[in-house]
Amino acid sequence: MRIVVVGGVAGGMSCAARARRLDEDAQIVVLEAGEHVSFANCGLPYYVGGEIDDEQRLLVQTPASLRASLNLDVRTRSEVIGLDTARHSVSVRSAGATTQLTYDALVLAPGAVALRPPIDGLDSPRVRTLRTVDDAIDLQAIVSGGARHGVVLGAGFIGLEAAEALARQGLDVTVVELAEHVLPPLETETAHYVTAELRRLGVTVRAGIGATRIEHNEDRDTVVLTDGTRLPADVVVASLGVRPDTEVFEAAGISCERGAIVVDEHGRTSIPDVWAVGDAVVSIDAVTGARRPVALAGPANRAGRQVADDIIRPTGARAIPAAVGTAIVRVGELTAAITGANRKSLDDAGIDYQTLHLHPNQHAGYFPGAVPVHLVVHMAASDGRLLGAQAVGSDGVDKRIDVLATAIRAGLRVPDLIDLDLAYSPPYGQAKDAINLVGMVGANLLDGTLRLWYAQDRDEVAETALILDVRSPAEFSTGHLPGALNIAHTQLRERLDEVRAAAAGRPVRVLCASGVRSAIAHRILAQSGFDSASLSGGMSSLRSVLGDAASDVLVGGGAGHE
Amino acid sequence: MRIVVVGGVAGGMSCAARARRLDEDAQIVVLEAGEHVSFANCGLPYYVGGEIDDEQRLLVQTPASLRASLNLDVRTRSEVIGLDTARHSVSVRSAGATTQLTYDALVLAPGAVALRPPIDGLDSPRVRTLRTVDDAIDLQAIVSGGARHGVVLGAGFIGLEAAEALARQGLDVTVVELAEHVLPPLETETAHYVTAELRRLGVTVRAGIGATRIEHNEDRDTVVLTDGTRLPADVVVASLGVRPDTEVFEAAGISCERGAIVVDEHGRTSIPDVWAVGDAVVSIDAVTGARRPVALAGPANRAGRQVADDIIRPTGARAIPAAVGTAIVRVGELTAAITGANRKSLDDAGIDYQTLHLHPNQHAGYFPGAVPVHLVVHMAASDGRLLGAQAVGSDGVDKRIDVLATAIRAGLRVPDLIDLDLAYSPPYGQAKDAINLVGMVGANLLDGTLRLWYAQDRDEVAETALILDVRSPAEFSTGHLPGALNIAHTQLRERLDEVRAAAAGRPVRVLCASGVRSAIAHRILAQSGFDSASLSGGMSSLRSVLGDAASDVLVGGGAGHE
Repeated sequence: MRIVVVGGVAGGMSCAARARRLDEDAQIVVLEAGEHVSFANCGLPYYVGGEIDDEQRLLVQTPASLRASLNLDVRTRSEVIGLDTARHSVSVRSAGATTQLTYDALVLAPGAVALRPPIDGLDSPRVRTLRTVDDAIDLQAIVSGGARHGVVLGAGFIGLEAAEALARQGLDVTVVELAEHVLPPLETETAHYVTAELRRLGVTVRAGIGATRIEHNEDRDTVVLTDGTRLPADVVVASLGVRPDTEVFEAAGISCERGAIVVDEHGRTSIPDVWAVGDAVVSIDAVTGARRPVALAGPANRAGRQVADDIIRPTGARAIPAAVGTAIVRVGELTAAITGANRKSLDDAGIDYQTLHLHPNQHAGYFPGAVPVHLVVHMAASDGRLLGAQAVGSDGVDKRIDVLATAIRAGLRVPDLIDLDLAYSPPYGQAKDAINLVGMVGANLLDGTLRLWYAQDRDEVAETALILDVRSPAEFSTGHLPGALNIAHTQLRERLDEVRAAAAGRPVRVLCASGVRSAIAHRILAQSGFDSASLSGGMSSLRSVLGDAASDVLVGGGAGHE
Repeated sequence: MRIVVVGGVAGGMSCAARARRLDEDAQIVVLEAGEHVSFANCGLPYYVGGEIDDEQRLLVQTPASLRASLNLDVRTRSEVIGLDTARHSVSVRSAGATTQLTYDALVLAPGAVALRPPIDGLDSPRVRTLRTVDDAIDLQAIVSGGARHGVVLGAGFIGLEAAEALARQGLDVTVVELAEHVLPPLETETAHYVTAELRRLGVTVRAGIGATRIEHNEDRDTVVLTDGTRLPADVVVASLGVRPDTEVFEAAGISCERGAIVVDEHGRTSIPDVWAVGDAVVSIDAVTGARRPVALAGPANRAGRQVADDIIRPTGARAIPAAVGTAIVRVGELTAAITGANRKSLDDAGIDYQTLHLHPNQHAGYFPGAVPVHLVVHMAASDGRLLGAQAVGSDGVDKRIDVLATAIRAGLRVPDLIDLDLAYSPPYGQAKDAINLVGMVGANLLDGTLRLWYAQDRDEVAETALILDVRSPAEFSTGHLPGALNIAHTQLRERLDEVRAAAAGRPVRVLCASGVRSAIAHRILAQSGFDSASLSGGMSSLRSVLGDAASDVLVGGGAGHE
């Protein structure tokens, strides 16, 4: 049996390696269009930034090492330019010649190619992408060789890694993002912290705006934005998204959806004996059911392995799971991560949900180094099923997102998070871990013990309700919503008459710094007959929603970030 | 309604606080025998060691702050010395006087007291425990005030935290543990790394031995061990376990099992209107069904909250879950953690299981700072259900244990771990995360793709099988099992005849450094007709099982730790 794998990175190489472990006798050929296989594609930005200082470290495997260890026939610079499914044959162009290679099983793992939107001048030689080892080596040479001004187009995960890499190398960097904020899959209130950290690193963030053209000059290019801003650029990194690299296969009759290969739960395409995995295939979202390609290394690697199982021993082969879509990025000293659905994907899918905001410390507050994990969690309005979560902070973020990703995969409801026995000692967590607290707040919301209001609704609330700020007067004086009544939560029981008088029949909308004290106040008010609700995530979340507008909206104190 | 809570730390205080949030009108009285409530009991060792430098930080709440925020009536130095369940009344001794206090609902959260085994001289004033804020303040004063020699009796979690604290303060410290290794709930192969780290910190570890007496002298005590060793001691920390502090309640007719209060899934005792939570109650083990008290802060806090729910609004109150028993400890630069069952508890329960050992890096190997997470995972032999896991390493341990704790709670099978979409980018994980790899190895074991042998069986294997070491010759020369044949895995396909000749009909037992290459070799051998198996965890696990005996057992190289 001959297995031909098209694409020698993530999914393709995992498939080839697994196939060999299952079958010593198969002939396994890996065709890779590029120079390298099995390279550290997720490590490229760190090489550009100088954290990984030896390019050899990016080459995890070589054709020779794969031959020795796994008896794989790996052919680099071998581009598949045709597929004849009737003859079970691919056309391979290598070193100028084209040959035919037949297969018994064909695995398509072609990945994706960078999108090139119609921006004038995007073909300037100073415009680079960061997709291959050679891209990284070139870019590293440019940025460490005297370039002063860098522009990154696109503030997705890789765009931000590239921006930080350029800033580490001393460049004056501007990130340009068409969406309203950096890391568009994240909610506004999560992305806020990332924007602040980018600024702390010296990176200029221009969000909600696009590049209209790139003017190429001998000395230096100029990136012109739609508002007329002119950004000097010794180098431009284009990180504007990707599209599946599937034209050859779609032309050969492999069923595709908007350019992505359609596969079943075993990675089988519409044509017998042809499988596909990775960035080029349609994934089904585990939460919303949406169909779209997911360009993530982890799922691609695992799917490759599972396709090998289906090829070699199809009976009982484990299905490739629907995509939870967990992703993470380091930006300076911050970590930002997401798992499951966000507001937009839930809205698009028509799923009713409620959202929680928490800012618990990553470990015991009395232990040195305690810092908040800023959490946004979406749960099904009907039954509290965990739908998605995001977190940002300088410590403990990856752990909480991984626990929540596990909970989503296991189908847990948010109240089930109360019962997780997570590892606690003061350097690692709290007796009620951040995740347990998500469960408790969610359970309170579901059963009516808690009622929330949201920072996004502040204007409407200001018109129709009394805003009651239950922080201490000292905290209140650092900045508060206009018109808010300040009664510390510790005095609320004695001063309910003041609240009643000020409310004058209106609802009371409570807030504190993070939502803990306002939840206590809400319980006091609700049990005293008030129409009350607590601001989800408190002033921390309010400031993260306001962003730069905080200085205009808040009164009585600095607009500085808490 | 009057709710009386006996015990003002973890479970008791969580119950009182939750009760207030649910019911503004209840009278809530908290009776605490000690000086302080809601103090940072898990933080005490860090105060002794100087990492927490302000004792005020240990006092998370005070009676005054709890009155102000939650309108709780907190009475310290108030010891409950009697209970009359017929009259719904407790006898409280405070400031020399005894009063009666009636209740509508009584919550028993008395916690546990230190065990005092019959060791002569344990009543020496130089023998201390570390259970209260005052204990910690006294001990900190002693160790920072010129004490030179410290002995810690008992190498459980708190014993090791105490030992490190003393070592940080410059004492010459010996830890004495009756069990065969430190941290007895951990397997030998996990505890090995902790012992090595303790030694690196300068702590002398004496395991498998007990103290027979303590000789009290004016200048300095002497701890005498059963083998005659005499350890000088300016201070002795006794951390020899605890027992539930329940005599008063058992005498009053509350049903107990070996001194621990029996409760149902809502924390209800055998007597109406009396609940109990925390270290003093019998927990049911989620994996094995074993009944025993679990002295952990997290479950106690959460159970306290759930008891309040059952008191105030019993309809639909969430059940207190069975105990997964996750625990974690920092020792120097290492983290060691456990979740679920260990070998002993599985053996005791008669559950058939298989064990996996893995040593994957916590993040991408090509990214700076990659270090292994040493994992031991037990799964049900029948269906692969995840039963328990342990991990030790200098980074990424708490995350993996929390994911596994979540998986145990969710009832996942080990192969289900393949499908977890965990957050991956090079600083945080690998495209196939350590947890995914556990799933893959477990799935391979369950379906027969992989067969393992264990370091514990090395003597029997040496007598009956050919040991094939597939590391490189250079690695082989650093130390290997006597009689092992060395053929690098990359040469195995060409040298199968040598293996066949050397095996001479015997089974072949393969090993490499960590179990990855030997698994590839196993597949080659198995498909070539050999009776083959791969050493679980490779040389890393073998050395962790051998411990100090490595220098005697291994030949051809150093016995140094890999």
